Amino acid sequence: MTWGVDNLPYGVFSCPGERPRVGVRYGDKVLDLAPALHDEVFAAPSLNPFMARGRMAWHDTRTLIQNKLTGDLPVTEAHLIPLEQVRLHMPFEVADYVDFYCSIDHASNLGRILRPGSEPLLPNWRHLPVGYHGRSGTVVVSGTPVRRPHGQLSAGVFGPCAKLDIEAELGFVVGVPTALGSPAGAFEDHVFGVTLVNDWSARDIQSWEYVPLGPFLAKSFATSISPWITPLEALPRIPGRVQDPEPAAYLRRQGDWGLDVQLEVVLNGEVVSRPPYSGMYWTPDQMLAHLTVNGAALRTGDLFASGTVSGPERAERGSLIELTWNGTDPIKLPSGETRSFLQDGDTVTIRATAGALTLGEVSGTIV
Amino acid sequence: MTWGVDNLPYGVFSCPGERPRVGVRYGDKVLDLAPALHDEVFAAPSLNPFMARGRMAWHDTRTLIQNKLTGDLPVTEAHLIPLEQVRLHMPFEVADYVDFYCSIDHASNLGRILRPGSEPLLPNWRHLPVGYHGRSGTVVVSGTPVRRPHGQLSAGVFGPCAKLDIEAELGFVVGVPTALGSPAGAFEDHVFGVTLVNDWSARDIQSWEYVPLGPFLAKSFATSISPWITPLEALPRIPGRVQDPEPAAYLRRQGDWGLDVQLEVVLNGEVVSRPPYSGMYWTPDQMLAHLTVNGAALRTGDLFASGTVSGPERAERGSLIELTWNGTDPIKLPSGETRSFLQDGDTVTIRATAGALTLGEVSGTIV
Repeated sequence: MTWGVDNLPYGVFSCPGERPRVGVRYGDKVLDLAPALHDEVFAAPSLNPFMARGRMAWHDTRTLIQNKLTGDLPVTEAHLIPLEQVRLHMPFEVADYVDFYCSIDHASNLGRILRPGSEPLLPNWRHLPVGYHGRSGTVVVSGTPVRRPHGQLSAGVFGPCAKLDIEAELGFVVGVPTALGSPAGAFEDHVFGVTLVNDWSARDIQSWEYVPLGPFLAKSFATSISPWITPLEALPRIPGRVQDPEPAAYLRRQGDWGLDVQLEVVLNGEVVSRPPYSGMYWTPDQMLAHLTVNGAALRTGDLFASGTVSGPERAERGSLIELTWNGTDPIKLPSGETRSFLQDGDTVTIRATAGALTLGEVSGTIV
Repeated sequence: MTWGVDNLPYGVFSCPGERPRVGVRYGDKVLDLAPALHDEVFAAPSLNPFMARGRMAWHDTRTLIQNKLTGDLPVTEAHLIPLEQVRLHMPFEVADYVDFYCSIDHASNLGRILRPGSEPLLPNWRHLPVGYHGRSGTVVVSGTPVRRPHGQLSAGVFGPCAKLDIEAELGFVVGVPTALGSPAGAFEDHVFGVTLVNDWSARDIQSWEYVPLGPFLAKSFATSISPWITPLEALPRIPGRVQDPEPAAYLRRQGDWGLDVQLEVVLNGEVVSRPPYSGMYWTPDQMLAHLTVNGAALRTGDLFASGTVSGPERAERGSLIELTWNGTDPIKLPSGETRSFLQDGDTVTIRATAGALTLGEVSGTIV
């Protein structure tokens, strides 16, 4: 079944009149973990205390839940709550939020759009996973309405963003911290799981503000994530894409951290793109190694995202600026409507699967 | 006296074997606020719960402390602990950290150094306070050793940073949050106080990594702040610098938020620069208005810093890249030594005063 024992993502839910707490999704139900596992760590309103326990605890807990659900151990029916009775919340407290820029197709497309006539990739791009810090306080859970931001669009021009865009991404959630000054160890010792990310972007604000210190207000108004965090252990892995030139020693891969995740971008119910994660140039283990090579500490709840996932085909682009070539070539929706960028009332949903596994979805409506 | 009743900055301290808690500095002592004011909010290991109470509570508390210390109300001697008996900690939990770029002299100097022959200021600079998000998890308190970061310095070159620099800044600490989607109200309704900031910077890592998304690992290894947070109410204010062109309506000043703060940069005990905060182009009320104009929410503990404070004179520059013109013109210390950038073992201390008021210092040693 979908959402079966091979999946078991974690989230934070509440029933009417009760406090938010940690649960695991199983089919169309939520397993209420604190009473089911007799463990108060799941009574917290965020995954952070559980995520801080580390890899062995994550594995043991997953095995225990699987045993409960497949009948080796009993599960009380009252601990399995129908999804329609619960509300879903932010699954974890975000410590620092970093966004990378790991798709070679996305980076090349943006280079062609924003710097026509010059080499699409900047000189550093193939040498390191370019990234920057975003605003962790405005990471919101799927379903939160997204208010169209106002801002400066050019010299002397202030108003509502006219080029409101999405970025379909995968995000990685850190469980186990590092000490200041010590680069991270193995990826699977630190990263708890993955979430879907929609990094809403105001392209007109961005193009005016971003030199020389990078995107700021163009991104900080909202970043949406999916409510269910898929454990790393559940994700099938594949080899990463070949890299040329060979990366610096600290960025060399120690294992297969390519992910065969297929994303889908849905605008008002119609699929507009199917970005393949498998073609990403920089793999998440390389993002983590880069993020900490200077000694920057990790904290429980750190979130780092891949950057827009785009494939080489037009129908595989993970942002509207690419799909519509900065608005010059609007997309035609199956309904007959066209879009250059998002209009008020539009709903964008990003869904993903990894083989038979679903990663759920992240959704938001422009208000 | 220095650190008198006109000052009374807040910090977090501990005595040996005891838990960190909130105190106020008075002379060479720390007033232990939880017992002195019979208020458990000060038993927390950070200022955040108190800062969240808001402007009226900040004012009432300050008045109460002043009455205690000037004798209208009694203070128990045991609640005044000699400074030499305490250890100082991070004074607050940093939510999001934003760094601006508000000095016209600093931005112009960097433009001349990094883009010689072209207009020093980029087109957006006089229209908005340029800023970006930094790493809040690596903001550390004064005295924390700073490890020289390793990183990519250019294509195929990895190693220890050879251009380790400082940035002398003023930081503003948010007490009262805003809701997502609502720009901030009056500056003094949100901002609790100020801290000194040293935004350590790896210039060689920065110049290779920063296009197109801004500084990342060049800054994220450590940012030091002073342990005593000066209440906004204590700071004398002056008119802000004249701005041309007139800023957008949301950036127009509603009051005098220029600050007559005089900074001093001390390298291994010798003063190398005296940057004047009074000449800053963008004032802190404008930073706050800009930061939230897109609807980005504030949280208690948000920290935003001014960017390097530099004046027009050489002896007023707040970073080594400016003082030594990117290493081409090393500074000569009074001791006879020279410096282009920081060497291992160097200690940098940034001190500041505002009229008769001291803002204390932030210090760090390179290891």
